Amino acid sequence: MPPSEEEPHFQSVGIVGFGLIGGSIALAIRERWPSVRITAVDRAPVLAHAAGSGVIDRAAQGVGGLGGVDLVILAAPVEQNVRLLPEVAAQLGENAVITDVGGTKRDIVKVAGALSGAAFVGGHPIGGAEQGGFAFARADLFRGRPWILTPDGSASAVVVERLGAFIQSLGARPTAMDADEHDRLMAFLSHLPQLTVSALMEVVGEATAATGLRLAGRGLVVSARLASSPADVWGEVCASNARDTGTALVTLMARLQQPRAGLADANTVDAVFEHAARW
Amino acid sequence: MPPSEEEPHFQSVGIVGFGLIGGSIALAIRERWPSVRITAVDRAPVLAHAAGSGVIDRAAQGVGGLGGVDLVILAAPVEQNVRLLPEVAAQLGENAVITDVGGTKRDIVKVAGALSGAAFVGGHPIGGAEQGGFAFARADLFRGRPWILTPDGSASAVVVERLGAFIQSLGARPTAMDADEHDRLMAFLSHLPQLTVSALMEVVGEATAATGLRLAGRGLVVSARLASSPADVWGEVCASNARDTGTALVTLMARLQQPRAGLADANTVDAVFEHAARW
Repeated sequence: MPPSEEEPHFQSVGIVGFGLIGGSIALAIRERWPSVRITAVDRAPVLAHAAGSGVIDRAAQGVGGLGGVDLVILAAPVEQNVRLLPEVAAQLGENAVITDVGGTKRDIVKVAGALSGAAFVGGHPIGGAEQGGFAFARADLFRGRPWILTPDGSASAVVVERLGAFIQSLGARPTAMDADEHDRLMAFLSHLPQLTVSALMEVVGEATAATGLRLAGRGLVVSARLASSPADVWGEVCASNARDTGTALVTLMARLQQPRAGLADANTVDAVFEHAARW
Repeated sequence: MPPSEEEPHFQSVGIVGFGLIGGSIALAIRERWPSVRITAVDRAPVLAHAAGSGVIDRAAQGVGGLGGVDLVILAAPVEQNVRLLPEVAAQLGENAVITDVGGTKRDIVKVAGALSGAAFVGGHPIGGAEQGGFAFARADLFRGRPWILTPDGSASAVVVERLGAFIQSLGARPTAMDADEHDRLMAFLSHLPQLTVSALMEVVGEATAATGLRLAGRGLVVSARLASSPADVWGEVCASNARDTGTALVTLMARLQQPRAGLADANTVDAVFEHAARW
């Protein structure tokens, strides 16, 4: 997005966790709002890389360095965001806003309900790339993509609107929904596909160890990329949405039973493919 | 591939079934061997389209029109190829060669063993595209891609070599294996992924009917394309490889049980993702 002439919604932004998502947000802010001061919190080697690229103004190795920041974006792994939230809130003034970018929202919203101090609004940008880390960050990662907010009443409508406007200024499309609804939806749209494709590639890989994927069609190679997402991030995300992801898995397994039972009958198998092609 | 100055391996080629695969083979032959006479067998409207594009020399609506052809390529759906093989063989001289392009090989090789007349060598080009039909055919669909041959002893080594050389001249990479091994391998590399992604997209589509795939990440949208392959073709292919595909499905379901049982424990889920990322 081209630099804006207007006043930014936040003058000073802290980003905790400077990987693909945190780094891409920083790059997008830098491009759109050159005057905004960006503080990054992460381990020293990660911060050295970010500082060298000129995308941050200040580096801190702990959330203690976030005093005076207007907006904090928690972009560490899901469980870490949940753990850090109360500590971060305690550093900030009443007018500061905290959001996160985690793939599940129920847990962090629960913690936010008991916060005092800064206001929290859960967030989840739907961007993503095959490889994680700041090295793969891009200013346009979220451009034209949905960015879900899950306001839970602990922040005022004014705060939610201000955060939404800021997100929109970075090129994304903010959309609000309930944290429960978010997690249920993502169990099917994100966590189930990730688990399934990972399990699929594992089974395929073992059964074809001798020949490898050399004889695979193009479709499988494309799906294999989905399975190459960082293991630790996804494991944590699925575990933090165990109930809904479990339901989604059971639904899929029931569906997979159908073609298995009817494999000798081409019509039964056809029905599965026809339903799927419709979506 | 640029036109060759050499003598073609076959002077007159008949292609039965003029969809994506049959049409792409015709285009590749036309490009590499302009002098080869191509006869297409399909329904009248399909043939009218092919004739209009100048890629065929002769159109026939039945395999009765294949007399005098050197090489017949069966490129109809799997079961139809199996049914047509004896009829086609009866039209041809002792020196003619028949091959097919079906995704399973055990059934057709079994029928080939009882043939008299022309020699048969099973084949399976690993190309493929998201959409079927002659309208999507491309001369380079198989370029640099594997093309499996499953010689079963019913054709001489000289015939197998001649067919392999012809396939190579079209830009593909011929590789030989046993029909049983082919079907077992494809159950994992092709049929299981297709069934799984189709079932996955069906489940995801139903659970998110209200919001649609608008909130899905890029990975899922990519996988959804695999599920959009023509339903009838895939149903038939899986049904004709029921035993191996069933085994593959059972293996996957057992694997999916693991993360389900351990969903509350991030380490168990991690293990699945780590194994998968390795392939």
